[in-house]
Parts: sequence; structure tokens; C-alpha cells
Amino acid sequence: MNADEIINQVKSAKKSSKQLSLLSAQAKNDILFAMAQALSENKKIILRHNEIDIDAAKAAQISDAMTDRLALNNQRIDDMIKGIEKIAALPDPIGEIIDEFNPSPDICVKKIRAPIGVIAMIYESRPNVGVDAAALCIKSGNTVILKGGSEAFNSNSILMDILCKAAMQKGLPRGAVEFIKSKDRKAVDEILKADGLIDLIIPRGGEALVSFVRKNSLIPVLSHGKGLCHLYVDKESEISDAVNLAINAKCQRPSVCNAIETLLVHKDIADKFLPIICDEFSKWGVLIKGDETVRSLLQGGIKIEQAQESDWTTEYNDLIISIKVVGSIDEAIDHINTFGSKHTDAIATKDKAAADKFLAEVDSSAVMANASTRLHDGSVFGLGSEIGISTQKLHARGVMGLKELTTTKYILRGNSSVRT
Amino acid sequence: MNADEIINQVKSAKKSSKQLSLLSAQAKNDILFAMAQALSENKKIILRHNEIDIDAAKAAQISDAMTDRLALNNQRIDDMIKGIEKIAALPDPIGEIIDEFNPSPDICVKKIRAPIGVIAMIYESRPNVGVDAAALCIKSGNTVILKGGSEAFNSNSILMDILCKAAMQKGLPRGAVEFIKSKDRKAVDEILKADGLIDLIIPRGGEALVSFVRKNSLIPVLSHGKGLCHLYVDKESEISDAVNLAINAKCQRPSVCNAIETLLVHKDIADKFLPIICDEFSKWGVLIKGDETVRSLLQGGIKIEQAQESDWTTEYNDLIISIKVVGSIDEAIDHINTFGSKHTDAIATKDKAAADKFLAEVDSSAVMANASTRLHDGSVFGLGSEIGISTQKLHARGVMGLKELTTTKYILRGNSSVRT
Repeated sequence: MNADEIINQVKSAKKSSKQLSLLSAQAKNDILFAMAQALSENKKIILRHNEIDIDAAKAAQISDAMTDRLALNNQRIDDMIKGIEKIAALPDPIGEIIDEFNPSPDICVKKIRAPIGVIAMIYESRPNVGVDAAALCIKSGNTVILKGGSEAFNSNSILMDILCKAAMQKGLPRGAVEFIKSKDRKAVDEILKADGLIDLIIPRGGEALVSFVRKNSLIPVLSHGKGLCHLYVDKESEISDAVNLAINAKCQRPSVCNAIETLLVHKDIADKFLPIICDEFSKWGVLIKGDETVRSLLQGGIKIEQAQESDWTTEYNDLIISIKVVGSIDEAIDHINTFGSKHTDAIATKDKAAADKFLAEVDSSAVMANASTRLHDGSVFGLGSEIGISTQKLHARGVMGLKELTTTKYILRGNSSVRT
Repeated sequence: MNADEIINQVKSAKKSSKQLSLLSAQAKNDILFAMAQALSENKKIILRHNEIDIDAAKAAQISDAMTDRLALNNQRIDDMIKGIEKIAALPDPIGEIIDEFNPSPDICVKKIRAPIGVIAMIYESRPNVGVDAAALCIKSGNTVILKGGSEAFNSNSILMDILCKAAMQKGLPRGAVEFIKSKDRKAVDEILKADGLIDLIIPRGGEALVSFVRKNSLIPVLSHGKGLCHLYVDKESEISDAVNLAINAKCQRPSVCNAIETLLVHKDIADKFLPIICDEFSKWGVLIKGDETVRSLLQGGIKIEQAQESDWTTEYNDLIISIKVVGSIDEAIDHINTFGSKHTDAIATKDKAAADKFLAEVDSSAVMANASTRLHDGSVFGLGSEIGISTQKLHARGVMGLKELTTTKYILRGNSSVRT
């Protein structure tokens, strides 16, 4: 595809924006249900196209983890279908009144939710990301331009062909979902240049992609953030509870952003807690990296590697954990605010004052007391599918669902009302 | 000031951020009242320093409008004092619960408002902007770095000396309000480089300043937008009401962003409405620029200049108006969405369906039916002082007050709760 073809798709998304923004909740839900049904009726053809991508990935000796992210099966298609149906079941965010005031008897001001406009989603590997994004954008009244990774090109193409056909038959305006049929990375450059046509860019993928988009876009960017999460085990914690939380937060699904990377342990509980948790970690096959204190406390027992300064800023996304002993809750909070990625951090404690202090002073998108960081998730919170988890502070912070894909608009009704 | 000194001030703001974020509403209000009182007790010295700036402006033959924006007097100092007291009287936004859910009986999630962190405000001419910003930031728990224009250097310096001294005596943490005592534009470059230390940059001033900051900052930017506002006079409008709205929106204060620049008139009412409104505009000394239809309708009467294509995108900020006759409400909406700045746009009509259509389809931060665009204002809406009016779609749109200076934070309390 050349630059003109891509810009024509962007213009098409811009052109259909007003029409989509005016659709009723019922009309949008009908479209979503038709999309879900179309996926259900076309599983075989989707899996056939997915096989082409998988074969190419294997031929290119792409890692097993990456190939797994790429792979579709009946279960994964069913999850996409359930995701779309869940979004249809959520209340329509558009038109929701957020604030209301009457400056004078004749004047009524309402602050309502409105669509953002045109959103471009640039994503890698997992084909469900594009499907979720299309469904969330339609429900929130935004047209969407989708650019998936070249490794998933055939899967993404067939999914979007099926979805768009079904959606347009139910009245989705032409141009409301524009899939860029290009394997070329240069297509991203063309999208980033379309300032004035696109209102928001959402990159979702590795750090390299997110950082490239942030540095090269004049269009506002909302990105899925890096997850360097912590659990702090306070001196007043129940050891069995702390073990339960640490194992869940590290081992239940180590490859995701809300798993922990670093365990901080108060010095007064370290000698009791560390042998037990390290024994558990060993059983789960977790590689342990400890500071000097950890290593000296566990001398002669389980093998603990020496943690380096760089470990405190490393997102392993794997069965590896770094452990540090701290002298106080203040030291734990400082460590998290200094080295963390402001994603999700938790404390295990029976001391309410310590929990309150931690929740108030840790500056992260989600902070937790006596809970696993893995709970920071759109489906757990009941928000339906999520477009990602933001570690930015502007517009959206933490899990992002339908509401985070909206802006606001002041609607003022007067009676020939003027400023005096 | 050299770069190191500026970065030290930025670091000082960052360092005091946590301490300020934890202050109670009462503590913050005590600080604000002390600041208001200090201004009241030091009017003479403030006016003396302001005179130095005014004399320099006159010597440099700066325009009267600019000099007027710079000038302080007792009334203007009283307005700053009232502004600070109003902010103190508003509810504390920090800790406000925005959303709450219980994913399971043991888990409680609250989405609360939290300070953004460190804000840098870069502003021009009017000394009250820095005072308002300091008060809004303190109340919203944000530390603030202030860089004012060189033309107001002496006024800004004395104001900030007085405010900071009074505030710190009442417990404002050192570093929470950092005024950059430099006339050098290069100080702005140093501020923009401080990614990782500053969370948000707010430029407020001319288009050149805002555009420079947007293009040169990796730190998120929230800017006061350009105001190219419209009034559309529908065919079903009451002529006296439409005249009332047009005159107020254009003439009550033409130099500000929420005054109108373009009047759109439905063709079916043009022959009755235009002679009356143009006569009124003439009385107010407004220069009129009309399209062909306007000029032919008013032939032989009041002098109407020929409007050029460029007039539809020009923010006059002066007693000048462009007038265009449109064939339909759709043409009016298209004109506004194409040429406007998405700030504030209004319709005059007695037809409810036309009003609803206009309010739904015009994509601006504030849309109004039968009201003057001049009403889009923080004090009119009861929000206290405003940090500006945003025409962006992310984070904040329209008037920005205390709430727009906050981010959110998920607080989750569990009972050894894990993900299954």
C-alpha cells in the first residue's frame, strides 16, 4: 500500500466519525451482536488463515512464547466472541451526564460524555487486541484505524473482513472500522503524520513500539504501560497470607504486566518469612535474586543469585523474582516510588495504619492492601474488555475500558442568556 | 540563572510533591487564606514593583492592550485575593471517590482523585495567572513551577515572594511553589527537558508559546486553546433574541477567547435579521466582513467589507466580525466543524429539534442553545478560578478548574485476595 491509500483510509474514518457518534445504543449493540455471530460462523476459515501466520512464524524460528501469542484455536475465538457480547451488555457511555449545574434559573449546563472521534490502534502479535479494540471503539462511538503486526497479518485480515462485513450489513457506517492491509512498518509513519484527522493514537505492544510512537507523534498518545510491580511484606503481616499473595502475584501468570517483579520484605519478619517463601518459589521453579541480607539469611539453603542494581528496574515477565530486605515501610515506599513503573503495588499487613500509609503514599495507578497485584484487571473490576492499562497520569490511569475512550462536552441551554 | 539552578528548582518541586499531596483540606485552606491576607497587606509594594514593568513596557513602546494586561491596581489585586479565597471555599478534590465496585465480597475497589504531582506553568503577561495557578495547584495537592513572561518579571517576582513567604509560614512545604527568577526564554527549554521530574506542562499565552511548548515537550501538555467561536442564527429564531446574543458574544469583551468571530445566518431569515444586527454592530463600532450574499442584501446601507476565505479561520480578538449566509443548519454545522477551533459555539433558535441537532452534531468543547458563548467560563459555571479552557479532547475539555488538575488512583483492599 502506498501513502495515499493509507491516508484515504484515515480520511474515510474521519468522514464517518459524525455518523457513528450519533448511533443509538441499540443500533451499536445490534452491530456488536452481528459481529459476534459472524465470528462464530466463520471459525474454520479464521483458523485456516491463522495457520498461515503460525507456519511463517515457525519457519522464521520465532520464539515459542511469541508463536503462542499469535495462535488461535476454538477457545480463543470463543473468548473474543464473549468479549464482544460483554461490551454490548455494558451501558452506553455516550451521553452520560457527569456533572450538572444551574448558574442561574434560566441556564442549565450539563457535562456529558462524548466520543473522542477517530482513534488509531497500533498493536502487535495477539489478534484479539484488534477485535477488542474494534468492539470497544464502536460502542464508545469512535471510528478506529487498526494497524496490526506483520506477523499476524493473515489472521488480522480475515478477522477484520468478517467483522466489517457483518457490521456494515447491520448499519455500521462505511469507514468506521478501517483495517490497514499492509505489512509495512512505514504505514505507522503515515498514521502518525495524520495530525488533524486522528484524535488519539493507542500503541499496544513492546516497549520499542510504544516508545517509537510516543517520540514520533504530535497526535495525543495513550499507551499501555510497562509493569514493574511490587509486593511489600510488612512486619505485621500473617506469613501464610503473605506467601499466598506473593505466589499468586508472581506465578499465576508471570508473563503479564500486573505480575510482580520485586518482593520487598521488612527486616523484622525476614528471618521467618524468607525461608518459607523461597522454598515455595523453588517449588514453582522461580529463579530468585536476592540482596546481601537475603543471601546471608538463606545461606546454605536454596540457591539465591546476587541481585544487581539493574534488577530493581527489570521487568522479567518470567519466573524470576528479585527480593530486597528493607528497614521500614518508608524505605519500601521510597523504593517503589523510585524504581517502580507506577503500575500496581501491594502491601501485605495486618496493621491498618500501615496499609493506609502505603495506599496514600505509593504513587501508582493501582495500590492494594492484602490483595494480589494480578487483580488489577478490567474483567476483575467488571469493566468488560480493556484497551490496556495506563501508567500515564493524564486522561486515564490504570485499567482503561469504555469510559476511557470518551471525552466530555459541555451542553448549555439558555433563554437568550448573556454574560453581564 | 544557569541550567543547574533551574533544574535544582525543578528537583525541589519534585521532592516536596509527596509531602504536599498528604496535606489535609484544612491545612491547605489555612495556607490559601494566609496567602490572600499577605497580598492584602502588601498592595503598595506590589504596585511599586508593577510600575517598574509598566515603565519598561512603555519605554519599549509595547501596545496599549499588552500594557493593560500587565497593569495592576487595587481592584485587580482585590480580584486575585477573592480568587484565592474562592478556591479555599471549594471542596477538596483529593480523595473524592469517583467510582466504587466490589468484584467479590472480600474485595473493595475505589477509584479516587489524586494529585498529578509536579506541574510547570509557563505563562505570559497577566500577573494574576501565576497567582491563580499557585492557589489551584496547592488546593489540588500539586507542586508547581512557575515561569512568567519577562515583561512581567518584577510583578511576578514580588507576588511570588510575598505568597511563598506567607504560605511557608503556614506549613507549605519548601519547594511546593517554585518561581523561576529568570527573564531568559532559555529557562523554558530547561523546563521542557525535565522529563521524569515534571508530570504536566501548562502553557498559557499566545499561539506561538503554546505551539513551541507542544512541539518541544516529551512531557504531557495541557494547553489553553484558541477560540474561534460561532453563533448560528437559525431560520426559526426570534430576531430580538438573536441580536441580543450576537451583540453580547461579540462586544461584551471582544479580546477574549470565548467571544465570537463568525456569525452564520440562515438564508430564510437573512433579509430580516442582517440589517438590524449590522446596524447594531455599527453602533458598537464593529468592523463587518460579509460574504457575497451579505453584501448584496445590505447594498447601499452600512459598509460591509468583502470576507476572504482566510476570515473563516481568523481569531480577531477585536471588534471585527465575519458574517456568512448558509442554506441550512447542516451547512452551518459543517462550517463550524471545518473552520472552528472546537472551543464554544452557539445556536439561536426557537425550534427544539434544531437546537438538539446542533448540540449533538457540533464537535466543540462547549455547545450552547440560546445563550452567549461568553458564558463558557469557570466563574459562571461556579468552578472558581480556572487554569484555562482546553480545546483538546484528552484529559480535560472546556473550562479547567481543580478537578482537571487531578489524576485518579485505584485503591483496592482485600483479605489475602488472589486471582484465580
